[in-house]
Amino acid sequence: MDYQEFFTSALERLQSERRYRVFADIERLAGRYPDAIWHSPAGPRPITVWCSNDYLGMGQNRDVTRAMVETAWRIGTGAGGTRNISGNSHAIVGLEIELADLHGKEAALVFTSGYVSNQTGISTLAKLIPNCLILSDALNHNSMIEGVRQSGCEKAIFRHNDLDHLEELLRAAGDRPKLIAFESVYSMDGDISPIHAICDLAERYGAMTYLDEVHAVGMYGPRGGGIAEREGAMHRIDVIEGTLGKAFGVMGGYIAATRAIIDAVRSFAPGFIFTTALPPAVAAAATASVRHLKASAAERQKQQRQVARTKSVLSAAGLPLLDTVTHIVPVMVGDAEACKAASDRLLDKHGIYIQPINYPTVPRGTERLRITPGPFHTDAHVDSLARALVEVWTALNLPLASKIAAAE
Amino acid sequence: MDYQEFFTSALERLQSERRYRVFADIERLAGRYPDAIWHSPAGPRPITVWCSNDYLGMGQNRDVTRAMVETAWRIGTGAGGTRNISGNSHAIVGLEIELADLHGKEAALVFTSGYVSNQTGISTLAKLIPNCLILSDALNHNSMIEGVRQSGCEKAIFRHNDLDHLEELLRAAGDRPKLIAFESVYSMDGDISPIHAICDLAERYGAMTYLDEVHAVGMYGPRGGGIAEREGAMHRIDVIEGTLGKAFGVMGGYIAATRAIIDAVRSFAPGFIFTTALPPAVAAAATASVRHLKASAAERQKQQRQVARTKSVLSAAGLPLLDTVTHIVPVMVGDAEACKAASDRLLDKHGIYIQPINYPTVPRGTERLRITPGPFHTDAHVDSLARALVEVWTALNLPLASKIAAAE
Ligand SMILES: Cc1ncc(COP(=O)(O)O)c(C=O)c1O
Ligand SMILES: Cc1ncc(COP(=O)(O)O)c(C=O)c1O
Repeated sequence: MDYQEFFTSALERLQSERRYRVFADIERLAGRYPDAIWHSPAGPRPITVWCSNDYLGMGQNRDVTRAMVETAWRIGTGAGGTRNISGNSHAIVGLEIELADLHGKEAALVFTSGYVSNQTGISTLAKLIPNCLILSDALNHNSMIEGVRQSGCEKAIFRHNDLDHLEELLRAAGDRPKLIAFESVYSMDGDISPIHAICDLAERYGAMTYLDEVHAVGMYGPRGGGIAEREGAMHRIDVIEGTLGKAFGVMGGYIAATRAIIDAVRSFAPGFIFTTALPPAVAAAATASVRHLKASAAERQKQQRQVARTKSVLSAAGLPLLDTVTHIVPVMVGDAEACKAASDRLLDKHGIYIQPINYPTVPRGTERLRITPGPFHTDAHVDSLARALVEVWTALNLPLASKIAAAE
Repeated sequence: MDYQEFFTSALERLQSERRYRVFADIERLAGRYPDAIWHSPAGPRPITVWCSNDYLGMGQNRDVTRAMVETAWRIGTGAGGTRNISGNSHAIVGLEIELADLHGKEAALVFTSGYVSNQTGISTLAKLIPNCLILSDALNHNSMIEGVRQSGCEKAIFRHNDLDHLEELLRAAGDRPKLIAFESVYSMDGDISPIHAICDLAERYGAMTYLDEVHAVGMYGPRGGGIAEREGAMHRIDVIEGTLGKAFGVMGGYIAATRAIIDAVRSFAPGFIFTTALPPAVAAAATASVRHLKASAAERQKQQRQVARTKSVLSAAGLPLLDTVTHIVPVMVGDAEACKAASDRLLDKHGIYIQPINYPTVPRGTERLRITPGPFHTDAHVDSLARALVEVWTALNLPLASKIAAAE
């Protein structure tokens, strides 16, 4: 049996479909982000990062770093065990209190990542509800899809943000228990879900709600509680899930809910129980970040300003932006190879790093460059970006906005 | 629909079965471990930790901490993205090179935890092998079980470490592709698997091998490569999996294998692709720890010495130890409530922290205190432990070694 051959041929399939990924080796420098160093095959080169999910640059915030550093010196580098067996720490208990408060919930539970929170969180909740039907948005993140799958429950997929379709499925389900799983900000198209309207349906048809705010926490709402906070909907959502690895700039994930829900997930979720806890130094850094963004709106305002400016400058330059209401700025290419070529040329020729987004992360034909302007991108950064994109679009003969519109 | 009720009643079931877990809030202090502080309901109290999986105390090693701290100041606290989208870092690339070298493999791949490496690693590998049968040891860890389940492949469970049963199942499977998944050190009973003999069977019947060395890496073999290194079997294993969160004292997990296997998992594993990468500071700390333990045998020797001493002192005191060939020292109780009571009394009265291990982590009737002596436990610590255990065993009228033997 030639096992090696199975893996080699799977990789060859990827290569032939131009889906094989090469990771760019990037070295950030605290205080200089979004400027960074690219360890290219030809040696280190200065670049500007335009595709990070450290949306607010909190990964280089000095108070956040200081919390990590002080805790590492005082306590050490690792938790040393699962939460139950010697890995519980004062730092992680404090983080959970901070997160419960952020979302106005009774309790919160921290996981090693947002991915794990969704996968083990959704599957555990749904399993504990007898005969549960999960209603899942068609564009939900892979971590939610795996959670639904792992639960073994029946599922019904509703068309993305389609309230009529969701209602149709809720009505058809009758009065069995139901869990609606959706996101607030969808990270590839940058659109948001109608949270209040989904809660209206959940109430009318007696469903529980589970909301992924991974691309919203820290950035929306007066205290960074997310889109649900901004829209006054947090109290209507049963379970709010978030990450500590994007706008909060550290690592880890969590859910916030009633004490009984949190206690049940804590007690039954395998992906929570059987794994080493987050290091105290990581938990302390995350706590500092959440706390900072509860009190400070400066990062959010600066981000919104630079997002607006990026959108208007790129639009004026004729680049084919997807119109979004969030901080996510997709520039559409529509072809996997062209998208990769554009990304390569931006990096090689202009020192601008924007990873191409291809299938399966987005549907074929909607390949794009996904740009995430943040508070640390200066006006000069934005202007350089626009010039570089125009040069690349011209050199590669990619469609501009007007041409895309005309072809439709 | 009263959803709250589902969760409340699940929790009540746990309570009534005496399986409800309360996490002890422990604060370690770097340089003083295994001495620590317990934030008890009545206020902070000094304790000694005897159940940590920071087996070698590397979590308080100054070089490891310094690597975390320097990297945090230089680069920041988070990776800021998935490995593919801006989250790849020089630090994590370096860690993977270090781990591949540790196991004598062409390549390695880092995950957010050992749990995730097993779950997404096993499921991805097995899915890429057409018509794969997974042969899984009956005592495999939950993360491996979930990986097998998530693969959707057919599975056959062989009795724990039972070569005859494994061979029977291999023979019955005919010449379809097969993956044998097992551990080197089983963490609850402290026994080890017959690695060479399993590899013999794998070769004879054309199966791939996947070995979890989570409770062995750092501690066995001349460079801390695990039991397979100690026994000269690393080259016979196709995929070696380990954690950075136990003997290495940090957090994260990994697999090491041929370049094609690693590249396939890198390219196809959802739990690797769709999650924020390990922070550079965490990767740098792990690298420092792996490097340290490759070169230094002092921690391993000291650990072995204190393990031997603990076993002999507790045995001499008549305590019912499970005889093990590893660093894990289970003291058997055999009843969930008694086990919890013993643990509580050790903590309350003696300031000794050993979490009770009850069902479902171990089978009912085999409840135990699981003791993990390390290089930082002094002889005085061991003597205090023995005195405290004898006091607790006497006060609670728990069976001593001779009585257990007599009853059999
Ligand atoms: C919507 C969504 N949910 C969850 C996650 C996982 O979060 P984490 O990166 O913390 O694992 C991601 C991306 O990584 C995401 O885009
Ligand atoms: C055998 C085994 N494999 C894997 C894991 C998971 O490793 P980690 O704690 O890094 O998630 C554990 C325990 O946590 C384990 O005991």
